[in-house]
Amino acid sequence: MEHELKEFIKKCDMAIKEEDFDTLINYYTDDAVLVVKPDMFARGKEEIKSAFISIAKYFKNSLVPTQGEMIILEAGDTALVISQTLLAADKMESELSMDRRATYVFKKNSQGKWLCAIDNSYGTDLINQ
Amino acid sequence: MEHELKEFIKKCDMAIKEEDFDTLINYYTDDAVLVVKPDMFARGKEEIKSAFISIAKYFKNSLVPTQGEMIILEAGDTALVISQTLLAADKMESELSMDRRATYVFKKNSQGKWLCAIDNSYGTDLINQ
Repeated sequence: MEHELKEFIKKCDMAIKEEDFDTLINYYTDDAVLVVKPDMFARGKEEIKSAFISIAKYFKNSLVPTQGEMIILEAGDTALVISQTLLAADKMESELSMDRRATYVFKKNSQGKWLCAIDNSYGTDLINQ
Repeated sequence: MEHELKEFIKKCDMAIKEEDFDTLINYYTDDAVLVVKPDMFARGKEEIKSAFISIAKYFKNSLVPTQGEMIILEAGDTALVISQTLLAADKMESELSMDRRATYVFKKNSQGKWLCAIDNSYGTDLINQ
């Protein structure tokens, strides 16, 4: 059986592909942070939703994220996921890589449900670029 | 003023340098995970303490970790730190890099004190090596 976080990330990727941002935003904590670009951050559900709408437009509504190799480091109600994140789109990004080694932090809420707290698809490329 | 997590990580590095593992272990959550090597994990305070004793011996009691460029992504009581971690020692490691781009996850406890939950000095190098 796949790890529940692997399944959860698949649901997130599906919501991005389908541009179902109202569903997507429920997968984030209230104070979540999304790294939009290495120097641009969205904080909280409203900013994250706006950022995903802009990202979708930028990629001409054709963005499809999938995950390759993945490692899940779990410590109680907190998990760090290191994942090869592949972005496909009709418009290819020229400045930023479409094949990333991402770092995602998840937290389990009081109902035992995982939520994304930190969404950083750039991984360690944020430093020493 | 430096971010409190930057100060906290300095204290961790100092405890490693001084081999004060009883102090060091208090900087971790009870269910913390340490990536000892890409395929070796220590879970919980006792295993982490044993791992640091072995690491110290391996480096002939001369290991000095310091941090270079650092980015702190905070989401409420959870933080992901991406940091250039430099390891110096009399015995240099040949198989694994001494200049790493690490990923550390910290959690704030009920007393508002940060603790390390996931200590992964290998960062995204855990995948696609």
